[in-house]
Amino acid sequence: MSFFASRWVEAPDGVEELDAAMLAPGFKAAGVACGVKRSGALDLGMVRCDEPKPVSAALFTSNAAAAAPVRLSRERCDLGSLRGIVVNSGNANAATGGLGRDNAAWMQGAGAAACGAAVEHVAVASTGVIGVQLPMDAVKRGVADAGRALTDTGGLDFARSILTTDNGPKQCTLRHDGVTISAQAKGAGMMQPGFATLLAFIQTDAVIADAEPLLRRAADASFGRVTVDGQQSTNDSLFLQSNGASGRPLAGGLLEAVMLQLALELVVDGEGASRVAKVQVSEAASGEEAESVARAIANSQLVQTAVFGRDANPGRIIQAAGMALAGGDLPIGIDAVEADELGGDGFEVELGLRLGRGEHSAHVYASDLTYDYIKLNAEYTT
Amino acid sequence: MSFFASRWVEAPDGVEELDAAMLAPGFKAAGVACGVKRSGALDLGMVRCDEPKPVSAALFTSNAAAAAPVRLSRERCDLGSLRGIVVNSGNANAATGGLGRDNAAWMQGAGAAACGAAVEHVAVASTGVIGVQLPMDAVKRGVADAGRALTDTGGLDFARSILTTDNGPKQCTLRHDGVTISAQAKGAGMMQPGFATLLAFIQTDAVIADAEPLLRRAADASFGRVTVDGQQSTNDSLFLQSNGASGRPLAGGLLEAVMLQLALELVVDGEGASRVAKVQVSEAASGEEAESVARAIANSQLVQTAVFGRDANPGRIIQAAGMALAGGDLPIGIDAVEADELGGDGFEVELGLRLGRGEHSAHVYASDLTYDYIKLNAEYTT
Repeated sequence: MSFFASRWVEAPDGVEELDAAMLAPGFKAAGVACGVKRSGALDLGMVRCDEPKPVSAALFTSNAAAAAPVRLSRERCDLGSLRGIVVNSGNANAATGGLGRDNAAWMQGAGAAACGAAVEHVAVASTGVIGVQLPMDAVKRGVADAGRALTDTGGLDFARSILTTDNGPKQCTLRHDGVTISAQAKGAGMMQPGFATLLAFIQTDAVIADAEPLLRRAADASFGRVTVDGQQSTNDSLFLQSNGASGRPLAGGLLEAVMLQLALELVVDGEGASRVAKVQVSEAASGEEAESVARAIANSQLVQTAVFGRDANPGRIIQAAGMALAGGDLPIGIDAVEADELGGDGFEVELGLRLGRGEHSAHVYASDLTYDYIKLNAEYTT
Repeated sequence: MSFFASRWVEAPDGVEELDAAMLAPGFKAAGVACGVKRSGALDLGMVRCDEPKPVSAALFTSNAAAAAPVRLSRERCDLGSLRGIVVNSGNANAATGGLGRDNAAWMQGAGAAACGAAVEHVAVASTGVIGVQLPMDAVKRGVADAGRALTDTGGLDFARSILTTDNGPKQCTLRHDGVTISAQAKGAGMMQPGFATLLAFIQTDAVIADAEPLLRRAADASFGRVTVDGQQSTNDSLFLQSNGASGRPLAGGLLEAVMLQLALELVVDGEGASRVAKVQVSEAASGEEAESVARAIANSQLVQTAVFGRDANPGRIIQAAGMALAGGDLPIGIDAVEADELGGDGFEVELGLRLGRGEHSAHVYASDLTYDYIKLNAEYTT
């Protein structure tokens, strides 16, 4: 078992890892290169459920400047029964106005034709640079190519076709108690809050009744707990599709474990990240207070550089907590901080802060802030 | 005139620049080295008004984990009539519990003796590492030495004695229409919000009636408008003292100009900063909306690295604005962004965003995010 690599993920016993190129039974996928990315790398992906009436759910960014494909998918799809999803990388189709909206709609229509599905059963997603129109000739060619390339071993090409600044694909195919689940995700920056900035696609042959609340709960405990730079994307999209072919339910905790491991891989692959920190805040007066303090610590550039520098600096943790509670009174000393792991050699480090104000707690996973973050983002251009 | 270097500062006509070592008439200052800083640099400062009943005002951080000297000065001083202020650098005396409080009180008492003033007329301030107790033997020696060293040309030593990671002192002595104003500030990180993270001291022989509202208004337009890393300090303190000796009022706009220029110098000297950006948000539905969007853009790591990289990347500006308005709808295109100066060679650059939602506007000044920020903060240790 190599997928569940983090000490912070609890997977159900007896999970078997399959070739990640294989999708869950009854699903096909493809990833092709159509020229949106100048590098010639894979940049257009498609995933399709063979079954005409799958159960699905989708969650999107709450960013007010949401991208055209997010708006279109929210408004023009039957999100509870998606068969196909078409994705491009290299261009976010965000802040692109009426033409961007038309292009997203065209991509949906072409995707529906390529999938053999009704338009409202096909969602669209994009990721990449903001504020530039999609090169539609390339996208048209890509959608047609991807439709022809759909295969039940297309998981790896699909996972590669959705990447931007990621160092590599994040995906898995797992079997447990007669049920298969496959998942592909991308994301390496602009992560936080709501649920993390990312694209993620999950397919399963399990029987799922209430897909939307199930997905939302699992997202709150996984993608909703990670941050790289405190930035929220215009394009976050998360899809779960199920065809029920196995006749069996998902084991409790399996979806959460898959999503948390993927979320942690996004943090680890956060732009330039070298370590990942779990920030645990306890003894807060309310859940909201615990949450806001944990996020303030996790997103503090001073804490993130201390994680990078292996500097067990409790003062910065207290300062960030005090900022989150500005106007109040938090007279705590450095004995309220647990930061021993910060100064050590570990890759996964835990930071703790006891507020001494009540019984609520919250945690967030964060990357560190490194020279490579600056390098990537000062040089990644329109 | 070399002090008013920024194109964004409007100083009254006819301001004359004096030797910055000279304080306003009737004030004395000193800066000595007592050993709080291991480097042997100046680390204990004192400023004193000769006049026994000056008019003064002070503003402090709203951080809930405020440092001991901030709490003590707020609670145990007659802030409307401060004669003396004692400051140490190299140690913040924050998150230091009951012993830290006692040490701040002792510093106040010793400062009062050295100044020849009643205890409640002497404030204390500290800046430096959080969570470490002050070395009181060193501080005792320093307070006594500083008291003996007080002189009307001590402005430069005083300005140097309050520095931490600053590249150099920020100060001025100006004369206008028969009135003199001198000021000294420090700050190069943990700047934002409320008013910026800093220590600043202003002395004048002008006649000032309502010092506190005057100082608050000027702070809102200057130190309250700058950010380096979105972090709020535990130790922010801002003091204005006036002895009225000139018999004349301050010219309108002079205090604001002095404080804005000092605030911009803090941004320019922000840890590792290479450029300073003025973020202007217009056409917002409310003043609060304009403010929150401007701060979201100014504090975005993605925008700050784009400023560093001279990358005119309008998408990141729209993304940050959309995040500030999460849950709402902001369907704007990149034509709403003015980012031309970003890609140029200028040191002071202006960024603009029109929200198209109303008539309110706000601006914030921000540093960029550079390799040197990481270097300074990953290596600056307890």
